[in-house]
Amino acid sequence: MAALNAADRGRRSIACRSLLGVAALAVFAGAESLAQEHPRLLLVAEEIRELKDQWPRSTLFSAAVERTRSRIDALVASPPDVPAPKDPGGGYTHERHKANGIVIAEAGALYQWTGESAYADLVRQLLLAYAGMYPELGLHPERKEQSPGRLFWQSLNESVFLTYAIQGYDAIHATLDTQDRERIEARLFGPMADFLSVESPQVFDRIHNHGTWATAAVGMTGYALDDDDLVEMALMGTARDGKAGFLAQLRQLFSPDGYYLEGPYYQRYALMPFVLFAKAIEHNEPERQIFEYRSGIVAKAIRTTVQLSYAGLFFPINDAIRDKGLDTVELDYAVAIAYGVTGDPAFLSLVDDASNIVLTTDGLRLALAREAGRATPFPFASRHFRDGPAGDQGALTILRAGGAPGAALVFKATSHGMGHGHFDRLHWMFYDNGAEIVADYGAARFLNVPQKAGGRYLPENKTWAKQTVAHNTLVVDAASQFDGDYKRADQSWPTGHYYHVGDGVQIVSADERAAYPGTLLRRTMLLLEWPELDHPLVIDVLKARSKDARRFDLPLYFSGALIETQPAIDMGMSLQPLGDANGYQHLWGLGEAQSVGGDRLAFTWLTNGRFYTYNVIANADIGVAYTRVGATDPDFNLRSEPGFIFGADSVRNLDVVAVLEPHGEYNGAREYTIRSESQVVRLQRLDDDGKDLVIVETKAGATLAVVLSYDPNPNTAHTIRTAVGEYRWRGYHRVFGHGYEPDEERQR
Amino acid sequence: MAALNAADRGRRSIACRSLLGVAALAVFAGAESLAQEHPRLLLVAEEIRELKDQWPRSTLFSAAVERTRSRIDALVASPPDVPAPKDPGGGYTHERHKANGIVIAEAGALYQWTGESAYADLVRQLLLAYAGMYPELGLHPERKEQSPGRLFWQSLNESVFLTYAIQGYDAIHATLDTQDRERIEARLFGPMADFLSVESPQVFDRIHNHGTWATAAVGMTGYALDDDDLVEMALMGTARDGKAGFLAQLRQLFSPDGYYLEGPYYQRYALMPFVLFAKAIEHNEPERQIFEYRSGIVAKAIRTTVQLSYAGLFFPINDAIRDKGLDTVELDYAVAIAYGVTGDPAFLSLVDDASNIVLTTDGLRLALAREAGRATPFPFASRHFRDGPAGDQGALTILRAGGAPGAALVFKATSHGMGHGHFDRLHWMFYDNGAEIVADYGAARFLNVPQKAGGRYLPENKTWAKQTVAHNTLVVDAASQFDGDYKRADQSWPTGHYYHVGDGVQIVSADERAAYPGTLLRRTMLLLEWPELDHPLVIDVLKARSKDARRFDLPLYFSGALIETQPAIDMGMSLQPLGDANGYQHLWGLGEAQSVGGDRLAFTWLTNGRFYTYNVIANADIGVAYTRVGATDPDFNLRSEPGFIFGADSVRNLDVVAVLEPHGEYNGAREYTIRSESQVVRLQRLDDDGKDLVIVETKAGATLAVVLSYDPNPNTAHTIRTAVGEYRWRGYHRVFGHGYEPDEERQR
Repeated sequence: MAALNAADRGRRSIACRSLLGVAALAVFAGAESLAQEHPRLLLVAEEIRELKDQWPRSTLFSAAVERTRSRIDALVASPPDVPAPKDPGGGYTHERHKANGIVIAEAGALYQWTGESAYADLVRQLLLAYAGMYPELGLHPERKEQSPGRLFWQSLNESVFLTYAIQGYDAIHATLDTQDRERIEARLFGPMADFLSVESPQVFDRIHNHGTWATAAVGMTGYALDDDDLVEMALMGTARDGKAGFLAQLRQLFSPDGYYLEGPYYQRYALMPFVLFAKAIEHNEPERQIFEYRSGIVAKAIRTTVQLSYAGLFFPINDAIRDKGLDTVELDYAVAIAYGVTGDPAFLSLVDDASNIVLTTDGLRLALAREAGRATPFPFASRHFRDGPAGDQGALTILRAGGAPGAALVFKATSHGMGHGHFDRLHWMFYDNGAEIVADYGAARFLNVPQKAGGRYLPENKTWAKQTVAHNTLVVDAASQFDGDYKRADQSWPTGHYYHVGDGVQIVSADERAAYPGTLLRRTMLLLEWPELDHPLVIDVLKARSKDARRFDLPLYFSGALIETQPAIDMGMSLQPLGDANGYQHLWGLGEAQSVGGDRLAFTWLTNGRFYTYNVIANADIGVAYTRVGATDPDFNLRSEPGFIFGADSVRNLDVVAVLEPHGEYNGAREYTIRSESQVVRLQRLDDDGKDLVIVETKAGATLAVVLSYDPNPNTAHTIRTAVGEYRWRGYHRVFGHGYEPDEERQR
Repeated sequence: MAALNAADRGRRSIACRSLLGVAALAVFAGAESLAQEHPRLLLVAEEIRELKDQWPRSTLFSAAVERTRSRIDALVASPPDVPAPKDPGGGYTHERHKANGIVIAEAGALYQWTGESAYADLVRQLLLAYAGMYPELGLHPERKEQSPGRLFWQSLNESVFLTYAIQGYDAIHATLDTQDRERIEARLFGPMADFLSVESPQVFDRIHNHGTWATAAVGMTGYALDDDDLVEMALMGTARDGKAGFLAQLRQLFSPDGYYLEGPYYQRYALMPFVLFAKAIEHNEPERQIFEYRSGIVAKAIRTTVQLSYAGLFFPINDAIRDKGLDTVELDYAVAIAYGVTGDPAFLSLVDDASNIVLTTDGLRLALAREAGRATPFPFASRHFRDGPAGDQGALTILRAGGAPGAALVFKATSHGMGHGHFDRLHWMFYDNGAEIVADYGAARFLNVPQKAGGRYLPENKTWAKQTVAHNTLVVDAASQFDGDYKRADQSWPTGHYYHVGDGVQIVSADERAAYPGTLLRRTMLLLEWPELDHPLVIDVLKARSKDARRFDLPLYFSGALIETQPAIDMGMSLQPLGDANGYQHLWGLGEAQSVGGDRLAFTWLTNGRFYTYNVIANADIGVAYTRVGATDPDFNLRSEPGFIFGADSVRNLDVVAVLEPHGEYNGAREYTIRSESQVVRLQRLDDDGKDLVIVETKAGATLAVVLSYDPNPNTAHTIRTAVGEYRWRGYHRVFGHGYEPDEERQR
């Protein structure tokens, strides 16, 4: 069967190549390709010749070469370890083949930069070993049903392997004799590219990151093997009609703002094949102007990925492993290529050390520029990233103050993001002072740890991490949004977005109408740099409007040590789970408190040397549960994280206003504590015919008033009358108080 | 009363001064003092003149000057804030006076280095404000019973204040007119020194860190005020017989190895007055050769303090705030002075940045030497620190492998350490790969946080943190050692210490006979760099011998995520506290497991990217409780830390052998996991007439055998016979296996 495939492929590609060759010549006659000889993918022969004697001048690049050398040299002496495929993710053969793919690429790069033939020999031996085995392989014994691989349990890993291995082959192509080349192409790269494309169209033609890995792998193989047909299929899909393939993926997987629908964790992963293949396209067919495609979407997506991080780690929304961030191989490649494309010195500041330097010409140019002192800080800033191919499917909003290590409020009102999406519309997170303050649990998964369900997503990912109650957003009737059905969730997104940043006021608002049929949710969040307080203040105005009486639960997951609560929480002498379904079964109820008649509740915790007080009022009696994640967890898969749930029962219309105030400092090493008590002493909401007035008053007597009309027309005038006067403004919102609109404005 | 005191003091000091002046001249006629003029404490006029134009050449020192300047400049314009004493620790007046003391010292230093008179004015104003208030003060309204202060709730803070303030006075002495000097000396420093010495002999004459703060403050005041009587009293005690005072404290508070009986947290704190006063003595009476005193105990104590840390933080034994470490002001002074005394370039490597540079001449010399590239790594190494003034009251042992960020095993078999000691004899902790692996809870306290019991030790410090069950050592009959009575505990210490380091074997052993009357505990711990495994291995051989049947509980508190347990742990559907007293009431029982008939139990967790498997066998049926700290904690004062308790009931003689194996790597950012499974597949103990044989076997079939005779005589021959042969050795211990004694040795 393998032989048949190879023969079949041969026929197909010769036929198509001649046709396409003519077309390409006709259309792009003036374009010039760097890539007539090998290497021609990420490394290009002509550039290497030009830069080969420059790299020893770069300390960073030299260190990166040495790091790679020390890894690879350990393998040069021993015979290649190419075991028969047996294990699933995390197991020996899986990890070995993953590592071999990278070794092939790295040894190839070392050969190019050092000219030492031992590296070329290593690549040759590995490739011949794979060529010896691959045609005889059936599907992997541990194959995943929808997308099986041959070397690996899923074809995704096979695409990644090919993406690396083809670079190694490309790098040593010139050192191989014809017999070796033919053997490697006919028995390894040809069959593998076919397997990943025409034999796996359900993956290859999918508008999904797995599809992009497949198209990138196959397209790069096409360039390396002079197989224009593979390239064309990679770009246009197996039907070659452009409805699938790399260009369709570029159009549909990213929003116009460069946001990827699955969120930052998968955005990082999805980015890798985009940037690698784009670079290979640029080298081989510059006339395609791939980096100009869709207004430069590749570089935009890279910038957006960086913006979606705090203190080096990605915001862990949706299924996300929390230790992923800028220090990942995907970003190493992306940043080098983005710098190459844009020349923007802000990318240079994202390089920590030699471990972030990739062994490409872009990597070398990046290292040289950084060493020449050209780095400027990456401009982390408030951003409203629209979601969806046309930018009309919700948005992820980041409000920042005080630069990269300062305050960052993340407001999630995006589309669902398919199977890895969480049921968390209108969820928020908050970062401050370099730390996570209001948290997202991320995914329940120990990536690649065999003992933990083979490194796959754990059962608790579905029963806990995806559920609405695991997020800082409103739960209605103790059920998850869309009853936890992601196919329903994928059909809609939050609407009514409002976003404004300026004059010390940052505000974002969105509505959600579909998650709980019959209930409208509207959440408005502000980040205010109010001169009366040390640090930017978060204000949260959350409204639910329902036809029938509902139970509402609003969780708040925080990181830190609880310092003070008002009212006091009665601790339980034994702990029970808070419920038996929809995630509640995973919460231990540590204690309870009640607030009657709209009294302000206040909770202070300490994180990373700063105090945070969460003040909350509501238009209903509120029960507070102090919780800890970890109940009903027979394999102890969950992290023990603290949280509060604010609950109201039998309510049709709920209005909650909360203020999160960062304050003071705790310094254990230097032995001092300042302002450990909240400055906020009063919090009030007035409702005037659908408009809201929120008043915050400090211990020192300063008053801040926020008015909201929820009317985006900037010219419409609004008024709210209170016992002491009137607030008048135009448009969606206004803020009154010291540093904002003067008081006189209010009283006129 | 204040006036009376001042008059009284005047009389006393004139009388004594004349006598002492003669004696000093007679005995030390050849000695030369730097300190004829002011300043003469840490800063010395002659040195300043010599170095004054050198400091702008040091970037570090300049940055330290600028840091201090920016703090102090904010205060220069405003009138001094010297409020009437009102608040306890953490409150406003407390923190203000604490800060003022430091401001006086820092502004004084700035005046000396910059010559800018604004700084001298600030010091003058503050001192005059204090002089205006101090004589009228009674005891502090929130005074602590045993040791009240006047400015502060406890005299300790007053001593610290004086230690700083007298330096500031000394620094600006030359700028003051006679009237100001007389006013400040007669109304502030005189009465304060009297208050802290003759009026508080219960503190001043105590061999305790509070006493050292008092003697240092009073002694430095004596030098600054030319009051030899104060100096003599500081050195020799109020009775001037040498049974109390600074020299007695130097003799009795540190062991010959420089270990301080309360442990590293208080060692750091206690160190500060020792190093400051010692430096002042050196400047004013070099003939005392204070840095040679007791074989250079001051510098030795500084080196020991540094050795008592891992990754920059002190081992948190006894009452310890866990964020204290090398980055504390005490160490900044200590390291500068130690470098000044010894010239050892290893001290230079302890300076991170300008925040660690003190504004003394030692600080400047340190900064210049570090900038000249003279720093060498601090030689963190295995050390056996004997406890007690004569070194015969137990020991704290640290076994290290792999340098500073490598493995560190801490074995605690010290004396109790008075009221801040924990009931944790034969307790151990383990650090590896830069992280805490087997943990000590430290103290239950939020230092200086008013909402948390005014920043004092919390009730849970006594009910949890001090209890035996809160530590990694054996609990007998569910009671704490010495029934939690520290006065009983202070009367004895572990005995039978054995310590050996060499040839890849590190071992420490000790016995405890007094903690549980009628029960002998013996624990032997090894850190082995066995070539068969990736990382050093910990072996723990714990024996209990009792007259009657007992219940034994052995806790193990780990940091990290639980990955795998063998046998499986049955999780509880509701959680109860494990008991109602002696700390058990603070443990939630998350789940249980049983091991019958000596089966090996194995628990794997993941910390900071490395896996750790704890294998344990015993000569009795073992019940395992998986626990989490936090039950019976109405104010939520405790941290939620996981642990195991291994329990055996109705046993007279218990033998437990455990192996902790660090293995593999989890890299979430780079997406790989290696060797997540333990290599240890067999663990066995053979008992031969009081001698022990422990056998560890790996998956790959390698075998390690440890034999223990518990006989320290190196010449005595021992034999253990097994079914397959004999182990023969001489002395306390031997290790057989690859990399150690060859197998032939064993079979002869």
